[in-house]
Amino acid sequence: MEIGMIGLGRMGGNMATRLRNHGITVVGYDRSPESKRDVASLAELVEKLQAPRVVWVMVPAGAPTDDTITELKGLLDEGDLVIDGGNTKYLDDARHAQELSEKGIHFVDVGVSGGVWGAERGYALMAGGAQEDYERVRPYLEALKPEGENGLVHAGPVGGGHFAKMVHNGIEYGMMQAMGEGFDTMTHSDLIDNPAEVMASWRDGSVVASWLLDLFALAAQQDPTLHDMPAVADESGEARWMVEAALELGVPVPATVAALYARQVSRGAGSDTLRVVSALRNQFGGHITKA
Amino acid sequence: MEIGMIGLGRMGGNMATRLRNHGITVVGYDRSPESKRDVASLAELVEKLQAPRVVWVMVPAGAPTDDTITELKGLLDEGDLVIDGGNTKYLDDARHAQELSEKGIHFVDVGVSGGVWGAERGYALMAGGAQEDYERVRPYLEALKPEGENGLVHAGPVGGGHFAKMVHNGIEYGMMQAMGEGFDTMTHSDLIDNPAEVMASWRDGSVVASWLLDLFALAAQQDPTLHDMPAVADESGEARWMVEAALELGVPVPATVAALYARQVSRGAGSDTLRVVSALRNQFGGHITKA
Amino acid sequence: MEIGMIGLGRMGGNMATRLRNHGITVVGYDRSPESKRDVASLAELVEKLQAPRVVWVMVPAGAPTDDTITELKGLLDEGDLVIDGGNTKYLDDARHAQELSEKGIHFVDVGVSGGVWGAERGYALMAGGAQEDYERVRPYLEALKPEGENGLVHAGPVGGGHFAKMVHNGIEYGMMQAMGEGFDTMTHSDLIDNPAEVMASWRDGSVVASWLLDLFALAAQQDPTLHDMPAVADESGEARWMVEAALELGVPVPATVAALYARQVSRGAGSDTLRVVSALRNQFGGHITKA
Amino acid sequence: MEIGMIGLGRMGGNMATRLRNHGITVVGYDRSPESKRDVASLAELVEKLQAPRVVWVMVPAGAPTDDTITELKGLLDEGDLVIDGGNTKYLDDARHAQELSEKGIHFVDVGVSGGVWGAERGYALMAGGAQEDYERVRPYLEALKPEGENGLVHAGPVGGGHFAKMVHNGIEYGMMQAMGEGFDTMTHSDLIDNPAEVMASWRDGSVVASWLLDLFALAAQQDPTLHDMPAVADESGEARWMVEAALELGVPVPATVAALYARQVSRGAGSDTLRVVSALRNQFGGHITKA
Repeated sequence: MEIGMIGLGRMGGNMATRLRNHGITVVGYDRSPESKRDVASLAELVEKLQAPRVVWVMVPAGAPTDDTITELKGLLDEGDLVIDGGNTKYLDDARHAQELSEKGIHFVDVGVSGGVWGAERGYALMAGGAQEDYERVRPYLEALKPEGENGLVHAGPVGGGHFAKMVHNGIEYGMMQAMGEGFDTMTHSDLIDNPAEVMASWRDGSVVASWLLDLFALAAQQDPTLHDMPAVADESGEARWMVEAALELGVPVPATVAALYARQVSRGAGSDTLRVVSALRNQFGGHITKA
Repeated sequence: MEIGMIGLGRMGGNMATRLRNHGITVVGYDRSPESKRDVASLAELVEKLQAPRVVWVMVPAGAPTDDTITELKGLLDEGDLVIDGGNTKYLDDARHAQELSEKGIHFVDVGVSGGVWGAERGYALMAGGAQEDYERVRPYLEALKPEGENGLVHAGPVGGGHFAKMVHNGIEYGMMQAMGEGFDTMTHSDLIDNPAEVMASWRDGSVVASWLLDLFALAAQQDPTLHDMPAVADESGEARWMVEAALELGVPVPATVAALYARQVSRGAGSDTLRVVSALRNQFGGHITKA
Repeated sequence: MEIGMIGLGRMGGNMATRLRNHGITVVGYDRSPESKRDVASLAELVEKLQAPRVVWVMVPAGAPTDDTITELKGLLDEGDLVIDGGNTKYLDDARHAQELSEKGIHFVDVGVSGGVWGAERGYALMAGGAQEDYERVRPYLEALKPEGENGLVHAGPVGGGHFAKMVHNGIEYGMMQAMGEGFDTMTHSDLIDNPAEVMASWRDGSVVASWLLDLFALAAQQDPTLHDMPAVADESGEARWMVEAALELGVPVPATVAALYARQVSRGAGSDTLRVVSALRNQFGGHITKA
Repeated sequence: MEIGMIGLGRMGGNMATRLRNHGITVVGYDRSPESKRDVASLAELVEKLQAPRVVWVMVPAGAPTDDTITELKGLLDEGDLVIDGGNTKYLDDARHAQELSEKGIHFVDVGVSGGVWGAERGYALMAGGAQEDYERVRPYLEALKPEGENGLVHAGPVGGGHFAKMVHNGIEYGMMQAMGEGFDTMTHSDLIDNPAEVMASWRDGSVVASWLLDLFALAAQQDPTLHDMPAVADESGEARWMVEAALELGVPVPATVAALYARQVSRGAGSDTLRVVSALRNQFGGHITKA
């Protein structure tokens, strides 16, 4: 069994290793000559694989993924299959699938969770595509997924994998924000001696026991007040897409949007809103706010 | 007709003038010798007024108001009446009323809106107290209120005046936040040439025509982008009290709380929440956020 | 001066009347034979107008507007101009402008606020389009706008008119929600005798004085508790589009989204969220919630 | 080692059993004669225990707990110690501690998480009180806590245990709401075949892996759409208290408040807000919303 892996960064590189550890032959390509790539071009990668081929694209979402898929369409043959395991917006999957299908190339989108821990712990995988395509790529997914019975799901048709991953990340935003709000509240209260110790204690026996809490405890071990951490967080797109999708579907997602906005504001967004508030207060009350 | 006015700051001073312009004798006191006070002490103020007296307290909420009322209790006689026109939390009114009633002194709380414009435009007034007490202070309120049939209401029993004013301010927070969000959205769009001009145009004929929009237009005349205004706003307590009251009453107030939180965050609140988010992202994703 | 008006419903019909009252010849068309239409087809409308023509489209957004514009493209000549005054999503304007420009037909989008009151009070108008096109349609807009110096703005290029109207409506949602939350809070408090009377009193002298408050007072005159009003409200799209646009632009709009979600939930949205909460509570706590 | 347990309901009863399984003698009392109580009155319970006594109060918060503590004050001796393990609001702890200390009786408040699973899995415990009092009750807490190194913390002085538990529950609200929003969004999308299966798959390898997700999978096994669950959830007070505490401390908690409001609205709260929105829309737009 063999697969082509395009993109050998932190995610793709670790996944290639995990696949190899499960006895799968991986032909790896990365556009950087300094990577541990096996081939120096997509053409060479396609040449090295025996048809019908399976190629896993693991490059940044947007233009890099678009370009890679377009180039693959030119190189691959009818019956080959492309997996997009990157952070592509689910709306782009149908377009990619359509583009490839014009040449009879199959497509599966896979949302991948697990971060830097995936190499060791395995990756939670959500796949979108036709049933037969899912069955075809399943052996690779089984190699990447964690031990245990969970961590792999056929979420739905093309787009479903990235949709599920998007929702997963939206939930992740909400859970992290909720934990943050709790820590923040305890930090400001005289009744709590060590908020981090309290949070860490919840890892066993409590309703909020979770992997995120395990990670929190790791982070707090070295820095219990978290004062070394920046009070800012970027938003990487997926929670925003989920809020957009939910708007489209008529589903209110107030906790998710709260988590998203908290990150945006931490990066300076919303300033002009406050300028209006300041200007109005200044007009009616003569309040001169000092910045 | 005469009244004692305690506190001759921006609000109290303007109100004294407006009362005098309506033919009411005002004996003014302020603890600052540099004020335009008529008397140099509360004792002197009480002495100058003929029983049964009406005294208007217009000093900062909290300790200054508490102390003034306690001192007045010692000086006033049975049948006198104290008005608290400051920004007192409605929960304190019952306490003040009880304290004064022990000596047979009446109490009315009055929420006052209008800011620096009130001197000219008149003040919107919301009174709380017994019906007979309201009738007794009504001539003063009529002098202070704006021309026109609105601007004065007997909101309810003691506490009702400040409760109404608190809700008024909560609504004000929400309206200002809504306007700010609209301006902010237009400022970031290529489709709007001059957001301030658009906002100002809504003053006639639109659904959002309002005094706040008039004030916005004034502010924007000199500074259309509002870039000279600080992107921060303090919260002065009343919206927070409204959210607390609503929590107590089981009423969800999501727009009010959004407006309140936007101000708190503009002052740095919520930082520890973001530190947790950063710490977790760092743990699972190796994302090193740069502050 | 003459104009074609397509769509003679409540909005279009009243606008035609207002234009005529300002001495403008209006050729009106509506697909309903029962309307007060002057012509029985778009072809006839175009024939009746002298080139270069100005045609105002005032039909429902989406397919009806799309179809009308496509049909007009076939009938109009180079140099003619189409105004879309409906509730079209701003993103569709560029498409309509492009479609018409292929035949040299000009396009201006106009956001219209004022509702049923516009006939008498005039309409607040926000226009998007090229400067020369705006100047060309300006006489019609001047006829429609309210007396007074405000109520008309050239917001920006094509799309700017509907973008501005969308933001206007988003602000409107936020203001209405804020007022609603205040009324709701007062309704549940023992300290307020008559919440509607308090709200109505704010029409003069207060910071929240506004046309919406005037309308509130009208509504409350007949039904002070508002118990005859349904506790549900539809969302008509524009606040949702604003939240979407703001997401795209990276602008947090928490008060607007709160107002939008309140309406969605009033129509039953969010139920499956609560089902998850119920299911989890049932699992860990054995709480059997009764519906 | 022995302890008195007051309240033998689902929580107290299971805790008594767990304590006995760890070799601790428990004298149980419940006001219901049908309970498995060892004694028929508090007086008898106190009599049966050897001084210095430790008594665990596990009855509903509010009046039942207040009354029990007052009665215990009359019965216990100097040097005895009372634990309140119920869902008491943290603000009441100082009052209870003060009341008991007048007679030299010690006090520790303990927040208990774990629900019906605690009997088997152990309870997560957060204690508030003086260091020496914590050390004294620690053996009992060790017996109740889960296996493993976590699940027990000395959170801070008196009140800290219930404060920590309150924050724990606030986080729990936020996490459940976030999961619900994700499920709801997937349920409405054509791209997801079986939302419950996707959620359940995240139990291994994903960032959101958590005990709540394990419980979700249990619930979904029998009812994958959750349509048998009610779309309503009560709020039990603790998230509301957390929002109140955070307001007091100046900490914004938007995700927590979103979760709280979602439950309140599911029970009909917010209706008068919507009535105002309906009334205004009706006034300016003639929109007659059908309930």
